[in-house]
Amino acid sequence: MADRAKLLTTPGVFGNFSTYKVRADYMKLPAAERKAAAAEAQMVIDKHKDKVIVDTYLTRGLGAGSDYLLRVHSTDMAATQAFLVDWRATKLGMYSDVTENLVGITKALNYISKDKSPDLNAGLSSATYSDSAPRYVIVIPVKKDAAWWNMSDEQRLKEIEVHTQPTLQYLVNVKRKLYHSTGLADADFITYFETADLAAFNNLLIALAKVPENTHHVRWGNPTVLGTIQSADVLVKTLSGM
Amino acid sequence: MADRAKLLTTPGVFGNFSTYKVRADYMKLPAAERKAAAAEAQMVIDKHKDKVIVDTYLTRGLGAGSDYLLRVHSTDMAATQAFLVDWRATKLGMYSDVTENLVGITKALNYISKDKSPDLNAGLSSATYSDSAPRYVIVIPVKKDAAWWNMSDEQRLKEIEVHTQPTLQYLVNVKRKLYHSTGLADADFITYFETADLAAFNNLLIALAKVPENTHHVRWGNPTVLGTIQSADVLVKTLSGM
Amino acid sequence: MADRAKLLTTPGVFGNFSTYKVRADYMKLPAAERKAAAAEAQMVIDKHKDKVIVDTYLTRGLGAGSDYLLRVHSTDMAATQAFLVDWRATKLGMYSDVTENLVGITKALNYISKDKSPDLNAGLSSATYSDSAPRYVIVIPVKKDAAWWNMSDEQRLKEIEVHTQPTLQYLVNVKRKLYHSTGLADADFITYFETADLAAFNNLLIALAKVPENTHHVRWGNPTVLGTIQSADVLVKTLSGM
Amino acid sequence: MADRAKLLTTPGVFGNFSTYKVRADYMKLPAAERKAAAAEAQMVIDKHKDKVIVDTYLTRGLGAGSDYLLRVHSTDMAATQAFLVDWRATKLGMYSDVTENLVGITKALNYISKDKSPDLNAGLSSATYSDSAPRYVIVIPVKKDAAWWNMSDEQRLKEIEVHTQPTLQYLVNVKRKLYHSTGLADADFITYFETADLAAFNNLLIALAKVPENTHHVRWGNPTVLGTIQSADVLVKTLSGM
Amino acid sequence: MADRAKLLTTPGVFGNFSTYKVRADYMKLPAAERKAAAAEAQMVIDKHKDKVIVDTYLTRGLGAGSDYLLRVHSTDMAATQAFLVDWRATKLGMYSDVTENLVGITKALNYISKDKSPDLNAGLSSATYSDSAPRYVIVIPVKKDAAWWNMSDEQRLKEIEVHTQPTLQYLVNVKRKLYHSTGLADADFITYFETADLAAFNNLLIALAKVPENTHHVRWGNPTVLGTIQSADVLVKTLSGM
Repeated sequence: MADRAKLLTTPGVFGNFSTYKVRADYMKLPAAERKAAAAEAQMVIDKHKDKVIVDTYLTRGLGAGSDYLLRVHSTDMAATQAFLVDWRATKLGMYSDVTENLVGITKALNYISKDKSPDLNAGLSSATYSDSAPRYVIVIPVKKDAAWWNMSDEQRLKEIEVHTQPTLQYLVNVKRKLYHSTGLADADFITYFETADLAAFNNLLIALAKVPENTHHVRWGNPTVLGTIQSADVLVKTLSGM
Repeated sequence: MADRAKLLTTPGVFGNFSTYKVRADYMKLPAAERKAAAAEAQMVIDKHKDKVIVDTYLTRGLGAGSDYLLRVHSTDMAATQAFLVDWRATKLGMYSDVTENLVGITKALNYISKDKSPDLNAGLSSATYSDSAPRYVIVIPVKKDAAWWNMSDEQRLKEIEVHTQPTLQYLVNVKRKLYHSTGLADADFITYFETADLAAFNNLLIALAKVPENTHHVRWGNPTVLGTIQSADVLVKTLSGM
Repeated sequence: MADRAKLLTTPGVFGNFSTYKVRADYMKLPAAERKAAAAEAQMVIDKHKDKVIVDTYLTRGLGAGSDYLLRVHSTDMAATQAFLVDWRATKLGMYSDVTENLVGITKALNYISKDKSPDLNAGLSSATYSDSAPRYVIVIPVKKDAAWWNMSDEQRLKEIEVHTQPTLQYLVNVKRKLYHSTGLADADFITYFETADLAAFNNLLIALAKVPENTHHVRWGNPTVLGTIQSADVLVKTLSGM
Repeated sequence: MADRAKLLTTPGVFGNFSTYKVRADYMKLPAAERKAAAAEAQMVIDKHKDKVIVDTYLTRGLGAGSDYLLRVHSTDMAATQAFLVDWRATKLGMYSDVTENLVGITKALNYISKDKSPDLNAGLSSATYSDSAPRYVIVIPVKKDAAWWNMSDEQRLKEIEVHTQPTLQYLVNVKRKLYHSTGLADADFITYFETADLAAFNNLLIALAKVPENTHHVRWGNPTVLGTIQSADVLVKTLSGM
Repeated sequence: MADRAKLLTTPGVFGNFSTYKVRADYMKLPAAERKAAAAEAQMVIDKHKDKVIVDTYLTRGLGAGSDYLLRVHSTDMAATQAFLVDWRATKLGMYSDVTENLVGITKALNYISKDKSPDLNAGLSSATYSDSAPRYVIVIPVKKDAAWWNMSDEQRLKEIEVHTQPTLQYLVNVKRKLYHSTGLADADFITYFETADLAAFNNLLIALAKVPENTHHVRWGNPTVLGTIQSADVLVKTLSGM
């Protein structure tokens, strides 16, 4: 069975984010069929549990682009694809249209490492999430302009240091995770956040808007995906009107 | 029961704006089903009235993007989501496609406060809406460029002062409300207006186009949502052909 | 009954432009139902004739965005909305999807007035339309950049004078009308033209492309709506295959 | 009957380009209905042959935007519209969704005339198409920026001379035709090409990319329409699975 | 029968890339019909095997834009079109909507040739793919700005040399192929990659982002197509739920 803790913390893991809209005719299915959907979804998750882990989120009502979000991790992108193909063959999946699908890979810290930026690296380790359990997820794709990528490594390091400083205070109430997507999707990064405090998150993102790095964003959101963290069971039942 | 006056005036409240198109097949439902839709909509609003308040607007005929607009306030975004999930499970909701959905949070005045800009702050308090009851709503999403956010606080304060001055004369005939959305949606602000005088509103927005702040808009509208203020009962009956 | 001549010439009148595509399944309706559509459309126009006037245009075959265009004038935008809601409840309206909908308000001349620019104002009055009756309509939405709006009034007056000069020669074969939309729609202006001579109109628009004002267009068209002027009766019958 | 040779060579003729996708349910019609479609299409073309000429192209498989392209010429745009309205009432037309529709007008040479640019004008006449019969069509809409239109006539002439020089060598294997669209569509020009040699055409367009005029393109393609030249009979049969 | 090795290595060959979404109602077909789809797809490929070669890829789950990708090579674009028209007439094809379709032509090396850039040319030949068999495909359309095309040939050569240098190290784990599309599609190039190592590919694309050439990209992706390499048989069976 896939090791969830390891997949969520080690480099070289593929993250796959896909959002879906449930088509209107799904609710016209007999209640019995929709009632069976949650168990079927869980069965597919279980079928692939040796290779992939799946997180599920309800986005309906929090953004126009989707009703739900899947985050899938695996060390083998083909295994992730196999799961998503099976998901689309479930009852709910057959009535779902994919509206965004971004893939990325996790890496060791590029800039704020012990070697390159020891103080900020220490800062990143000095605090951990201490708020109540996160209820919300936010996914924000990022694409940077050619000027950013054509900077020297030193210049980019400086920019990321300026970026990192104001974020330290939010370590206690916003969890973050970064995926690298250049060439794998129409984004350079997928930034993933969990929080119980959307006001704090809003302030964090305003702080990130205020640093020069922001002048190099050609995509920052579009879509910004906001959802609530839900078990697959609750998610599918909610979308099935159960 | 949620305190409407408080939710509409205090900081830290979440505002959720969603627009919908009613699918063509809705009008093919038997009249009896459509006739029941208004009562059902009210029932869902009542079910959630302890946590959320709901305002409803008819946008059909005033913009291509939607037939109606919902504005939902709550101190808990998950409660707002729960209401909207239930709305989508009503008869009208099942035949509605969401076309835009933006969320934001209210805050105390950032710039034109008693401390930072006392004269303009006094100006904002010197006049109140005195026109006939507003019949129209306008919602305009705003996103600002990186140059704006990278200004010093003092520079931004100056810009907002220049922005505020020409708006004072419209306090008497345009009501306004501001929501902060950075990181929560693909916008930095949701600006909400009510008026009985669309000509005055047009002049207000021209005045806002004429200040330097306007050079920092990367989104200002898109969509501009224009609607008439309607009770949920009238809204649903109108869209149901009743 | 609404005074057509007055609504088309006085300031403070709301103009509403909406374009529609007829869904494919409309033609699958029994011929009898489609045959009744023209009379029903006229009935709705008549029902609202005390408050709104309606002009109808066939755009099918002249642009990908729509099959027909409605232009509605009224001194009360809510009355316009009431008409359009009723239109959408007619047989043809129920099978129509709105593809664009822009609203604006008429105003007295802002720039080329007797006071500010007497010579050009006289020029505007020196010639009137003398070609054969217009058969074509063109609607072009305009949005101007922040630099335009941040000019001084004098600068903008000069730009509009340069804009106006080359247009004088087309007074004889192109009719024009201007609506102001800032804040009411995602445009600053709706420019409306009627002509019998599309070659002359093409030359007029090339002349307008050649003045510096054109550097301030962030929207100029998108869509450019081209249609033929048709009575409601002919329009509905044409689209109904009658 | 409309004079094809004249319509294709004289100024003041309207060209109408429309692309279509055939809806999926077309192939679910009984074979007999689809079999009759080709004759019906020809009948409509014949009905209008006194005023319009029609060229037909198969684009399926060569671009995502359409399955087929119609090019219609007439000296009266309303006559063109009448044909296209009738086309949409044929069996195939009823199952077609229009995906682009641009109109333009032919004019005498603006720049490379005998007077203004005698050498290049002679160059344009010095060679004619001598390759095998064209099998392919390419349609590329063009929109130029305000800086282009604000150049003096002399500057623009120079730019077009630089544009024309490298194109002379392709006179033998690429046919071209130009339509003017400013104000009639969201383009300034429709450029139309026929060729039997797509490699030569690719080289021609690379040559055009390499001249300064290219810096003034705000639209150059989008869509680029590539198709094969087909009779109406073959086109309709192919799309009908016959 | 078409010579696969030759078509994949010689200049003057047309490459056609098309992506598709399978419509939701496909899965509502009786299993027997879907079961026959794979054989039917193979039959169509075989029917055209004298002129075209077809490669098939599963993209579902790896991007929102499509479920599968076809790459077709031929020396005659009309032959390619004939195949794709037949594909769309298969059971799966009839339930497929094309979402992107780009065409290009292969050419001899333009810049890094033995003559112009002997060292880098030798570098390109010094290593060959030595990783395990590729499992993944990536297709990235490229469009360059007018400034790029207006450079002298020498300047562009220098840029491409700087582009090529960091790519040499990836010859061992990423296969590449280039198609020229100017004027044939809304792109200048189609870049095609195969790899077994998506992490290496991500690093290659980051290296390409870091060279000045990247400042001249007006399209680089949009869509980035990521898929797994599958036989037609497996592809069709997977999408058919078999």
